[in-house]
Amino acid sequence: MSAELEFISRVRDLYRFEAIQSHLGWDQETKMPPKGAEARGEILAWIATQRHQLLTDPRLGELISELEESDCDNWLIANVTEMRRKYDEAVKLPEEFVSEYTKACSESLVAWQEARANNDFNHFSSHLEKLIRMVNQKIEYLGCENTPYDVLLDEYEVGMKVTDYDPLFAGLKQRIVPLLHSIMESETVVPRLPEGIRFSIDEQEQFCLKVSRKMGFDFEAGRMDRSTHPFCAGLWPSDTRITTRFDELDPFSCLYAVMHESGHGLYEQGLPKQHSYTPVGKAVSLGVHESQSRLWENQIGRTSSFWKVALPWFKEHFSDFPDWDAERLDLVANEVKPDYIRVEADEITYNLHIMLRYEIEKKIFNEGLPVGKIPETWNSMFEEWFGILPPNDTLGCLQDVHWSMGAFGYFPTYTLGNLYAAQLLEAMSKEIGNIDSIIESGNWSKILEWLRDKVHSNGSVMEPAELIKSATGNIPSPEPFLNYIEKKYSKLYNL
Amino acid sequence: MSAELEFISRVRDLYRFEAIQSHLGWDQETKMPPKGAEARGEILAWIATQRHQLLTDPRLGELISELEESDCDNWLIANVTEMRRKYDEAVKLPEEFVSEYTKACSESLVAWQEARANNDFNHFSSHLEKLIRMVNQKIEYLGCENTPYDVLLDEYEVGMKVTDYDPLFAGLKQRIVPLLHSIMESETVVPRLPEGIRFSIDEQEQFCLKVSRKMGFDFEAGRMDRSTHPFCAGLWPSDTRITTRFDELDPFSCLYAVMHESGHGLYEQGLPKQHSYTPVGKAVSLGVHESQSRLWENQIGRTSSFWKVALPWFKEHFSDFPDWDAERLDLVANEVKPDYIRVEADEITYNLHIMLRYEIEKKIFNEGLPVGKIPETWNSMFEEWFGILPPNDTLGCLQDVHWSMGAFGYFPTYTLGNLYAAQLLEAMSKEIGNIDSIIESGNWSKILEWLRDKVHSNGSVMEPAELIKSATGNIPSPEPFLNYIEKKYSKLYNL
Repeated sequence: MSAELEFISRVRDLYRFEAIQSHLGWDQETKMPPKGAEARGEILAWIATQRHQLLTDPRLGELISELEESDCDNWLIANVTEMRRKYDEAVKLPEEFVSEYTKACSESLVAWQEARANNDFNHFSSHLEKLIRMVNQKIEYLGCENTPYDVLLDEYEVGMKVTDYDPLFAGLKQRIVPLLHSIMESETVVPRLPEGIRFSIDEQEQFCLKVSRKMGFDFEAGRMDRSTHPFCAGLWPSDTRITTRFDELDPFSCLYAVMHESGHGLYEQGLPKQHSYTPVGKAVSLGVHESQSRLWENQIGRTSSFWKVALPWFKEHFSDFPDWDAERLDLVANEVKPDYIRVEADEITYNLHIMLRYEIEKKIFNEGLPVGKIPETWNSMFEEWFGILPPNDTLGCLQDVHWSMGAFGYFPTYTLGNLYAAQLLEAMSKEIGNIDSIIESGNWSKILEWLRDKVHSNGSVMEPAELIKSATGNIPSPEPFLNYIEKKYSKLYNL
Repeated sequence: MSAELEFISRVRDLYRFEAIQSHLGWDQETKMPPKGAEARGEILAWIATQRHQLLTDPRLGELISELEESDCDNWLIANVTEMRRKYDEAVKLPEEFVSEYTKACSESLVAWQEARANNDFNHFSSHLEKLIRMVNQKIEYLGCENTPYDVLLDEYEVGMKVTDYDPLFAGLKQRIVPLLHSIMESETVVPRLPEGIRFSIDEQEQFCLKVSRKMGFDFEAGRMDRSTHPFCAGLWPSDTRITTRFDELDPFSCLYAVMHESGHGLYEQGLPKQHSYTPVGKAVSLGVHESQSRLWENQIGRTSSFWKVALPWFKEHFSDFPDWDAERLDLVANEVKPDYIRVEADEITYNLHIMLRYEIEKKIFNEGLPVGKIPETWNSMFEEWFGILPPNDTLGCLQDVHWSMGAFGYFPTYTLGNLYAAQLLEAMSKEIGNIDSIIESGNWSKILEWLRDKVHSNGSVMEPAELIKSATGNIPSPEPFLNYIEKKYSKLYNL
C-alpha cells in the first residue's frame, strides 16, 4: 500500500470512531433512557481510548513525516497538516492523563448540573478547581509559546491568540456600548407577545420544519429531534441531525433555535463527501460553523423581509394570533435588552457576554484567578457592563455547560461566528444582489448556493482566516459586523 | 495481566463493537433518514471487519487454550466454551469470504425488498442463488459432521440437529393438524371488530405502554419506538429498546406486538449486568429468547384473565368501543384461521408455518432443491397443509426477511420458543400457583420474579436445553405445549 493510502486508511478509522462517538452522544441527548447513562459514559470513554491509541500509533507519525516530504495536492496537504497537529498534541499527553481527564470531565458535568439546579457554586467549585489544575497540566504537556491561555484559544480556532482577541474585542466594545446606550434611551416600544395564547407544540414543529426546509435543509438526509439544549450533529455523510426545544408561550424561541441549528446543518450537509472521515472533509472551525448558524438565524431570520415571507405560514399554524405585520414581528424578534443569560441574548449584548467570559478565562489561566473568586468577579464585571447584577450564580457564572466539560477558550469562537457571518453576507450581496430582496422573494436558494460554493464545499482545505479571505476578498475584520448592527438597530429603534 | 483478565478484556472489546453495531442497527430501523443508508451500510461493514479481526487474533486463541486447561468457575468456563466455538468458526472463514458474504447479504436484502414489493420472485432469485452458494461454501469451510443443514441449525440453537427436529416436528404435526380440523369444524363464531371505529395511535401507544409497564418493563432503562417490523434490541446494560407499529383499524396488532417485544425486553433487562459484554452476560439462545416473548404475548396476553385486568384500561382509551366482556375479547384475540402470513398466524397454525420453512430449507441444503423450484414447492406444500393456495409469492415464499439476510436455519427456533414457553409456564404454576388467578389479580410481579430467577439471571451459563431442565426439572419436550393448546382451544371453541 502506498503511504498515502495507508495514511488515509488510518485516518478514516480514527474518524469512524469519532463519528460513532458523535452518534452515541446525539442519542444520549435525545433518546437514551436515564438508567443508560452509566453504560453510555463507559462506552464513550472506551471509544476515547481507542481513538487515542489510533492517533498515537507511531506508524501514523511515520506516515505523516513521509507525506510531509512528498509532493501532495492541497487536500492531502491539509489532511497531513491537521493530522500532524493532532498527532503531536496527542503524543505529548500520557494515556493515563487523557483517561483521568475524561473521567474528571464526566464527573464535573454531573456536579455542574446539580450545582446549577440548586444554585450552589460550592458544589461545583472543587470539580472546577480540579479541571483547571488538569488543564494547566495539559498546557504544560503541550508546551506554551505565548501565554498559557493562548494554548487553549488555539485549540478551538487555529491561529487565534490573546494578541488577536484583545484588540478585536476592545474595538467591538468601543462601538457596541454606545450603540447599546442609544437603544436603551430610545423611545421605541417593543410590543409584548399577546398574553393567553398557547402555541401548540405540534404546530410549532410544523412551522419550524417548513422554515428549515425553505432554507434548504434536506430532511431526506437529516432529521429534527428534541433535546434540553438545541444542537446540530453532523453524524454521517448524508445524515445530519438537528435538535430543538419548545416553549408553548413563545414560538420565537423554537423558531430561531431551528434556524440556527439548520444553519449549522446546511454546512454539514454541504461538506465534500468524497473526503468523509478525514479532517478536510469536516467543518474548518467552530468560528466558521457559528457563522453559518448566525447568518441564517439573525441576518436572514431576524429581518422584516423574512417575516414578509414567513407571516402567512405563521398565521396558518397559529390562527388566533393577532393581525400583526412583518415589521412588528421583526421588532419583537430583535428586542435589545441586557439580561443574564447568554443563549437568550440579542445581537448587541451577545458579544458582551462572550467578552466577559473571555476576560475571566484569561484571568484564570494567565493571572491565576482562584476558583473561589469567579462568582464575585463575574458579578462585578457583569454589573459594570450590563448595568444589572445577577441575582444568583445560576443566572451568572453557572449558566454555561462549557467549563464543566473542560472547554476553556471555546467562547470567543461565538463572536468570531458573528463577525464572519456579517462579512460573508456583505460579500455575498456584492455578488448575488440585495439580500433583503432575495429573502423577500421567498426563494433562498441563491444564498445557499453561494455558501455552498464559498464555504461548505471547501471543507477544511484552508485555515479559517484564509477561507474567509478567499470567500470575501478580505481578511477577517469586525467592520462588516459593526456596520451591520449599527445600520440595522438604528433603523429598528429610530436612532 | 493474568490470562483471565486479558481474555475478558479482549472479549469485552469484541462485544463492545457488537453493541455499537446493534445500536446503529436499531437507529437504522427507527431514526435514520433515507439518504443515510449508504454510509450506514459502510460503517456496519467496517464494524464487522473490526470484529472479525479481534475474533481471529491468534492471541485470543492462545488465551482460550490456556484457560481451557485452567481451573475456572462455571461462568468463566461458559465464556471460554462459547469463545472457543466462535473463534474456531471465525478462523475457518477467510476474511475475504466474510467481507464478500456481508456485501452479498446487503445487496440481497435490497433485492428482496424490491421483489416483495413488486411480487417478483425472479428479481430476487439470482441473489438467493448466490447466497445459498456462499452458505454452502461456508458449510464447507466450517466442516460438516452430519448433514449440511445441521451446521446451520446449530448456529442458531446450539446442539439442535435434523435428527432432533424431525421427530419433534412430526409429533407436533400429528396432534396440531387434528386440533386445527376440529376448530375449523366448530360452530363457534368469532366476533368481528366493529367497523367504523378508528383506534387513535396516541391512545394505542398509551394503552400499550401501560400494559408493558404492568409486565414490569422498566422504561427508565428502555424505550419504545416505531419501526416497520417490531423488534427488541438489548443494546446496552440498562438500555433496552423495543419497537412496534400501529394500525388504526386494529388495536390488537400493536398490543400483542408490544407484549411480545416487552417479553424479549424483560429478558434483556434481567440479564446479569456484571457479565455485560461477554457471552455469558447475553441471552442463551434464540429459542429461549422467543420463549420469553411468546409466554407474555400468548400465555398471558391471550387469556380472558388478562382481559379482565386490561379491559378497564382499554375502555379508558377507546371510549367508543362497544361493551364487550373479557371472554369476547379473548376469543377475538385467539381466532384460529389458516392464512398466508406467518407473523400474523395464530398459535395453532404458527408452528405449521415454521415446519414448512424447515422442510424447504432442508430440501435446499440437504437435497439441493434449486432456487427456481422454491415457489412451487412452497405453494404445493402450503395448499396441502393449510388448505389454501397463496395467490402470489409476496404472500408466499417472499414474505420473510430471513433468507435475504442469509439466515437459514433460524426459523425452527420460533417453534422451540413456543414449546419452551409452555414448559416454563407449566413449571412456574407448580411453584407459584394458578397462573390465571395471578394474571387476574393484576399483580404480575411473581411471574416476572420466577422468570428472572430461573431464566434471565442465568445469562448463558448453561446451554439452552440445560437451562430448560434446570428451570422446569425436565428436558425440553413438546408435551406441555400440546397440552396447553389442546386445553385452551377446546375451551375457546367448545370442542
